[in-house]
Amino acid sequence: MSRPTALPFAALPARAWHAPARVRFSDCDPAGIVFFANWFTFANAAIEDWFDHALNVDFHDLHGPRRTGTGFAHAEADYFAPGMMGDRITLTPLITRIGGASYSLTVHIHRGETELARLSLVTATTDLDARRAIPIPDDLRAALVAYRDLCAA
Amino acid sequence: MSRPTALPFAALPARAWHAPARVRFSDCDPAGIVFFANWFTFANAAIEDWFDHALNVDFHDLHGPRRTGTGFAHAEADYFAPGMMGDRITLTPLITRIGGASYSLTVHIHRGETELARLSLVTATTDLDARRAIPIPDDLRAALVAYRDLCAA
Amino acid sequence: MSRPTALPFAALPARAWHAPARVRFSDCDPAGIVFFANWFTFANAAIEDWFDHALNVDFHDLHGPRRTGTGFAHAEADYFAPGMMGDRITLTPLITRIGGASYSLTVHIHRGETELARLSLVTATTDLDARRAIPIPDDLRAALVAYRDLCAA
Amino acid sequence: MSRPTALPFAALPARAWHAPARVRFSDCDPAGIVFFANWFTFANAAIEDWFDHALNVDFHDLHGPRRTGTGFAHAEADYFAPGMMGDRITLTPLITRIGGASYSLTVHIHRGETELARLSLVTATTDLDARRAIPIPDDLRAALVAYRDLCAA
Repeated sequence: MSRPTALPFAALPARAWHAPARVRFSDCDPAGIVFFANWFTFANAAIEDWFDHALNVDFHDLHGPRRTGTGFAHAEADYFAPGMMGDRITLTPLITRIGGASYSLTVHIHRGETELARLSLVTATTDLDARRAIPIPDDLRAALVAYRDLCAA
Repeated sequence: MSRPTALPFAALPARAWHAPARVRFSDCDPAGIVFFANWFTFANAAIEDWFDHALNVDFHDLHGPRRTGTGFAHAEADYFAPGMMGDRITLTPLITRIGGASYSLTVHIHRGETELARLSLVTATTDLDARRAIPIPDDLRAALVAYRDLCAA
Repeated sequence: MSRPTALPFAALPARAWHAPARVRFSDCDPAGIVFFANWFTFANAAIEDWFDHALNVDFHDLHGPRRTGTGFAHAEADYFAPGMMGDRITLTPLITRIGGASYSLTVHIHRGETELARLSLVTATTDLDARRAIPIPDDLRAALVAYRDLCAA
Repeated sequence: MSRPTALPFAALPARAWHAPARVRFSDCDPAGIVFFANWFTFANAAIEDWFDHALNVDFHDLHGPRRTGTGFAHAEADYFAPGMMGDRITLTPLITRIGGASYSLTVHIHRGETELARLSLVTATTDLDARRAIPIPDDLRAALVAYRDLCAA
């Protein structure tokens, strides 16, 4: 079983976009730490803001009026350290692949310099009414490419 | 069945503290609106910040090292209008009663001037280890009184 | 502050319908007990089964193809005793009022004879597409009346 | 991007243990399908019952009095088809690896013959108070081996 190694916050690309968040009482389980599934929910909220603020593609417009889904074909997480109630965390999405009808993100979750969890998400763009795959819309594709290039610069 | 009437945001006490929040995709149900139980989770998160920023009593310190619970003996909500994905909302806690071992809050949830939901919460202070009621700690009581008086001013 | 008194399970109407459930790790918070908002989620799940098994009105058909919502105008809970991870609980819905476009339920939640929580829910029937109140559909009304009379017998 | 292929229910090991569950309104998102993170919560609940009924190791006793955590070092999911409100599903845990202080499970989630999602979970056994890794307890190890052998038979 090979495991990735936690990455200090300072090692992230200098121009990556970051979403701040705070761990709430209700995010934690009886072990006193963030329930493992809730990290995916944190990431999804960060991605909504990333769409609005970094990609300039309105997430709620995309899913509402435009009826375009950005559901996940695959999701995974490596857990490096527990998140605790009250923790101020930072979520950083990075693009690892842009395909025809799907793209892949890594979302790094840090508390200070410590990476708590790293999520890898494969997003498939879909027609929400027909429930079938569709090519990544042009505006979203252009924005994904621009953000990827920005982080690589 | 008597129902309270929604209150415009402008009618809240001028010096009340407000918590901003945003409705996320994951907060909503298949009807496309905030799942009714999730308004209580929103309120609980707002109360955590209200402790830190308005009461100056550290919520996570209180529940962690001090082992003092602020659990609910009663919780209720009136729903005036649905919350939608992407809504920017504001939560405003107001104190309606300070007793010996419990206090009561109303949390108003607005989108702009529109009150979406109003929650009433009776909080009982407890010893988390012994699982029994304890008097409201002195620092918390003083802070609750000060906030109540501020809002009444 | 008047509070209702917990009711032993044996005091419930003999012919009431009961939903069994189990408290999961993920339902509980860092205090080790069911997070207060989650009792509402438990009740909503029990109501889905109550529709199918006691009312014989298909809940998912009602909300899906029939586009009829049974959202809440009001929800409240009295918490008598904490629910713990692993608890086997029983939820019992009782009808307290049947109006024109809304009806009221009490959901009693017991662990053995001990009532842990009691929820009161005011349900408003709505057209999910037009997002407006509609009269309780005839089949649902007849079923609510029959269940209410059964419990009163 | 290589993806696993969905497995029909009939192709699972004949003696595997299955947990039934039902998709609730509250499990679903505005796209009308199970929110991706909630599949992990479903799996965690199934694992609790699997401990009790297939492994004969009391999950709540393990995490409570014995203070032994079975947290996840890694979690991943492949999503094959959406889960819908009202779906009756079956979760089937299979053991893929038993190490010194961790073990790996696959949890297959089916609706009828259709695999909706497949989760892979790496569980690390920990001392919940010291928050450090500990060897898999003997009774749990023996039970994991027995279940693995049963499924392989």
